Amino acid sequence: MAHYTHEIRVTWGDCDPARIVYTARIPGFALDAIDGFWEDLLGGGAGFFANEIDRGFGTPFVHLDLDFRAPLTPRHRLICTVDVLRLGETSITFRVTGSQDGVLCWEGTFVCVFTKPPEIAKAAPPAEVRAAVEAVLGRG
Amino acid sequence: MAHYTHEIRVTWGDCDPARIVYTARIPGFALDAIDGFWEDLLGGGAGFFANEIDRGFGTPFVHLDLDFRAPLTPRHRLICTVDVLRLGETSITFRVTGSQDGVLCWEGTFVCVFTKPPEIAKAAPPAEVRAAVEAVLGRG
Amino acid sequence: MAHYTHEIRVTWGDCDPARIVYTARIPGFALDAIDGFWEDLLGGGAGFFANEIDRGFGTPFVHLDLDFRAPLTPRHRLICTVDVLRLGETSITFRVTGSQDGVLCWEGTFVCVFTKPPEIAKAAPPAEVRAAVEAVLGRG
Amino acid sequence: MAHYTHEIRVTWGDCDPARIVYTARIPGFALDAIDGFWEDLLGGGAGFFANEIDRGFGTPFVHLDLDFRAPLTPRHRLICTVDVLRLGETSITFRVTGSQDGVLCWEGTFVCVFTKPPEIAKAAPPAEVRAAVEAVLGRG
Repeated sequence: MAHYTHEIRVTWGDCDPARIVYTARIPGFALDAIDGFWEDLLGGGAGFFANEIDRGFGTPFVHLDLDFRAPLTPRHRLICTVDVLRLGETSITFRVTGSQDGVLCWEGTFVCVFTKPPEIAKAAPPAEVRAAVEAVLGRG
Repeated sequence: MAHYTHEIRVTWGDCDPARIVYTARIPGFALDAIDGFWEDLLGGGAGFFANEIDRGFGTPFVHLDLDFRAPLTPRHRLICTVDVLRLGETSITFRVTGSQDGVLCWEGTFVCVFTKPPEIAKAAPPAEVRAAVEAVLGRG
Repeated sequence: MAHYTHEIRVTWGDCDPARIVYTARIPGFALDAIDGFWEDLLGGGAGFFANEIDRGFGTPFVHLDLDFRAPLTPRHRLICTVDVLRLGETSITFRVTGSQDGVLCWEGTFVCVFTKPPEIAKAAPPAEVRAAVEAVLGRG
Repeated sequence: MAHYTHEIRVTWGDCDPARIVYTARIPGFALDAIDGFWEDLLGGGAGFFANEIDRGFGTPFVHLDLDFRAPLTPRHRLICTVDVLRLGETSITFRVTGSQDGVLCWEGTFVCVFTKPPEIAKAAPPAEVRAAVEAVLGRG
């Protein structure tokens, strides 16, 4: 069951001369969906931006992989789902999918580490952030 | 009175190290708003994409200007307004603005010519497109 | 006479389904050329990034305008020229052009104000920055 | 041994408020490097664009994965390497890396299928394209 659903308006400018969305735009869609997950989970607006500036934690990406199943076009909204696969001491792993008109277009895995900016070393997230993620995972 | 209002979710990835939206993203926001105007006006989804592929007309830009009044951040949705300033025989001019939290952040003028792809010469738009724009302008 | 020339490799991903560069990419090319101007003028690498972080001044944009003369494609490198049109007490105005294969594709004017980050109010630039720009203008 | 090396100028606009390159820009750098590989291999300029429009073959991506080892900044040029890992009947797999100042920043695998546009089904590439890739692989 998806914890969070995120809608994106795909446009002409996202497409390449093959008349489908350019591959390199898709990781950005997935990251926007994860950004929306944080905004939805923690409230207060602004996702990654609020995490870094207001809440004092960062989540830089250390890995991503994507499988592309069907082309994207501007003809339908892109519906992304975001699930937390795993919460570690200093990391978090997401499963993100994108569908249009009921067809799965891409799916992927994204691994982030928690940091305490401006430090770039791994660090445990704030307790309330951990608690909020655990609640979503059903073990809060 | 704005003919069309378009909402955009500004994200972390739109911002630069000054912690505000990078200037070069803003023309893309304005073009997405114009894309939305066409989708709203003509129906059928997909804006510029449907215009080019389904309706047989293009609207390449020949001019744009933008004045930046206040910084953009991810803390609020960006609300764009799109008005048709002028409809010529083979051109159309838009006024587009962007506001956050009630503050005007930028405003600009965008001039497009009509074409009949794959030709790149100026050409009158389809009659039903002209009629739809004229209706918005109140002289249909 | 152009003070600075900047080469950009235009790619497939910059193009839209009309098989030419998407309009909203072009302001980014112009800003990259201005970024290169600063890097070339002040040395030390990194343009806007070094200005903000190492040299303590920012140059947010308050205006830009662009006229599009011919389509851009990936078939040729984009050659940009950057000239300083005017240096004010707290502002700088650039003329930037882009050509491919000897054909002028776009030209525009870009106005920036100087700031002293993290403040966002206008502020005079560092004396050595002013001196370097004046030297380019031939009145150093 | 890398078959192809590709240099990219990283800029201010590629960076996010954490003052490092935004993760979602990096797949685009890798794809630009692969675009450069094709341009270098087949000549004639324009990479993916020439492949699609002049040579009649496409290479849509079906998979990508990336591991991020160190942050990217605008302080150094990004040096990408592109190697062909495997050439199948209707697919090609690349290994792409990105380094700055001698430090490996990211590395990844990219799988494309060959198509014959406007068809989107897999199709063998043109014989001369296969021959050129095989020559790079040392089994031409």
